[in-house]
Amino acid sequence: MTRVGREVRVRGYPAGPVTTGDFEVVEVEVPGPAPGEVLVRNTWTSVDPGLRLRLRPDAPAGYFVAFPLGEPMDGVMAVGEVVESCAEGFAVGDTVTHAKGWREYAVVDPAEVQLGGIGTLTRVELEGAEASWFLGPLGGMGLTAYAGLHVVDALRGGETVWVSAAAGAVGSLAVQIARLSGNRVIASAGSDDKVAWLQESLGVEAFNYRDGLDDRLGALAPHGVDVCFDSVGGDHLEAALDHLGRNGRVAMCGSISDYESEPKGPRNLFLAVSKDLTLRGFRGSSNLHLMPEMRQLIAGWLATGELVHRETVFTGLESAPHALAEMIAGRTIGKTLVSIG
Amino acid sequence: MTRVGREVRVRGYPAGPVTTGDFEVVEVEVPGPAPGEVLVRNTWTSVDPGLRLRLRPDAPAGYFVAFPLGEPMDGVMAVGEVVESCAEGFAVGDTVTHAKGWREYAVVDPAEVQLGGIGTLTRVELEGAEASWFLGPLGGMGLTAYAGLHVVDALRGGETVWVSAAAGAVGSLAVQIARLSGNRVIASAGSDDKVAWLQESLGVEAFNYRDGLDDRLGALAPHGVDVCFDSVGGDHLEAALDHLGRNGRVAMCGSISDYESEPKGPRNLFLAVSKDLTLRGFRGSSNLHLMPEMRQLIAGWLATGELVHRETVFTGLESAPHALAEMIAGRTIGKTLVSIG
Repeated sequence: MTRVGREVRVRGYPAGPVTTGDFEVVEVEVPGPAPGEVLVRNTWTSVDPGLRLRLRPDAPAGYFVAFPLGEPMDGVMAVGEVVESCAEGFAVGDTVTHAKGWREYAVVDPAEVQLGGIGTLTRVELEGAEASWFLGPLGGMGLTAYAGLHVVDALRGGETVWVSAAAGAVGSLAVQIARLSGNRVIASAGSDDKVAWLQESLGVEAFNYRDGLDDRLGALAPHGVDVCFDSVGGDHLEAALDHLGRNGRVAMCGSISDYESEPKGPRNLFLAVSKDLTLRGFRGSSNLHLMPEMRQLIAGWLATGELVHRETVFTGLESAPHALAEMIAGRTIGKTLVSIG
Repeated sequence: MTRVGREVRVRGYPAGPVTTGDFEVVEVEVPGPAPGEVLVRNTWTSVDPGLRLRLRPDAPAGYFVAFPLGEPMDGVMAVGEVVESCAEGFAVGDTVTHAKGWREYAVVDPAEVQLGGIGTLTRVELEGAEASWFLGPLGGMGLTAYAGLHVVDALRGGETVWVSAAAGAVGSLAVQIARLSGNRVIASAGSDDKVAWLQESLGVEAFNYRDGLDDRLGALAPHGVDVCFDSVGGDHLEAALDHLGRNGRVAMCGSISDYESEPKGPRNLFLAVSKDLTLRGFRGSSNLHLMPEMRQLIAGWLATGELVHRETVFTGLESAPHALAEMIAGRTIGKTLVSIG
């Protein structure tokens, strides 16, 4: 049986903000799986800030290479259901995660290592979890939040942790993991709605950085902060350097403020010298060894309700480009996802 | 007896390169030591890149505060001889280090903590060492070089370490400590004379960054470097981010390229995320606990001749401003010092 499915392709790299016109949705014939492969019907696909970085012809090194134009977008996480299997260990009906998202059907080779291993085809056991959570708190988002706090030694508690982009997928998890690990958490975001959610649902002190990043952070932490978990870069990283105390640490998760413009480095980086600061860049996928302990911890907190997970869901594959534009513009809360079919 | 001595004062903060006209040398009456104090005749005073940072009205936070105008320059290291003592533990004739340099005579209170402890009045035992070495390899310079390699875990050997400003006081020690610890060391400096000294006397691979920082570094380390010991900042820090491999580390010692201009941050800082890099700012004086092991190690290497120490000496207190200007312009090699009286 020949299937037909839709996939999203990049038509051209946006010069400024992402628009839906930068993409096209095309219908393609889906081949059956070759020996050793699996055919997956995707049910959810992920919308991540890092995608924006891959919409630049000058995408930085590492695995953040530019998406090729006019081809399916490989290296984006999806959850799906196995509909045909020619690979040992995968059966029809299995729920799996893999890195061939932004399409309705994907033929996946389990032997292909994707995204440093995190995107390699993997069967997941739901055990009471929603399938979409494996793109969020039980997947790469949870790992990134947990690993970032781990690599700057912020899981032992008793410190003041500032999380920027705190209403986002990773940020909202970093906020809660840091708090549940015994830290005082200060969260920042870019809208009053997000701030209200952080305060009321996540139970932390929060502020809207558009009201004055320096002033608001200084007022909440007059004696400085110990750790910053930063996904924003730019003025947020400069504020981190300003407000960190001696021996402070920054978990550098990304710099979304730079993704649509020419990056500028922090002008006050010398403070790292004068205050003995550590800036630690990291990728979730470089810390796959932490996945089991992260999943156990977060699944437990989700089950008891101690950890809150929120999703902004767009419906239908064709909404994926719009979802990305909305997320980058700061108009989504929690994990941004597209539900398919 | 009333003594008269000269001291250097800052007349005004330079807008661009330091000139001797930014300073004045004045003759002052030197009081005798009050109870608990010691009068020291300085024999050597230090000339450090960090001084330039304190010649800015907008000097960054921490102990890098601006020198007040028209007053003696406190917080600069000196070596001297006790000529009068009203303090227990210090006798006439003792060799001491302290932080009241750039003057001929200093009245020092041993109870006053200076430069995080490193500048507090301390008696030193020469034991075959030259007194001036306590401003260099056996003092703050040695500690800074050793501590920087220590905090980025570069003392275990077996890695490729790039040291910038490698012909400077700290750089030339970092080069040698890294090499003697079993690392491959690549050194860079800004003149062919310096490069020749690094190659011939210090026995490491070296290049002149003015011949093309990126090209030369890439040619010497085509597979990347593991650690950068950087005192330059600016384009050097950008090159570090470009050439570090996965899990690379930067020991950020300073950013002398920024001290006479508006600082710019590294535009490629995102590479810290994509390559899991650690940028570790540090101060030597924050690592005073390493002083005993550093001194033992370096004194041993100096005694056997395994470690080479070079000084550029200017004679007479009045030459101190000129010495500073020459050092910042890159025209001195090794530790820059002023011998007094």
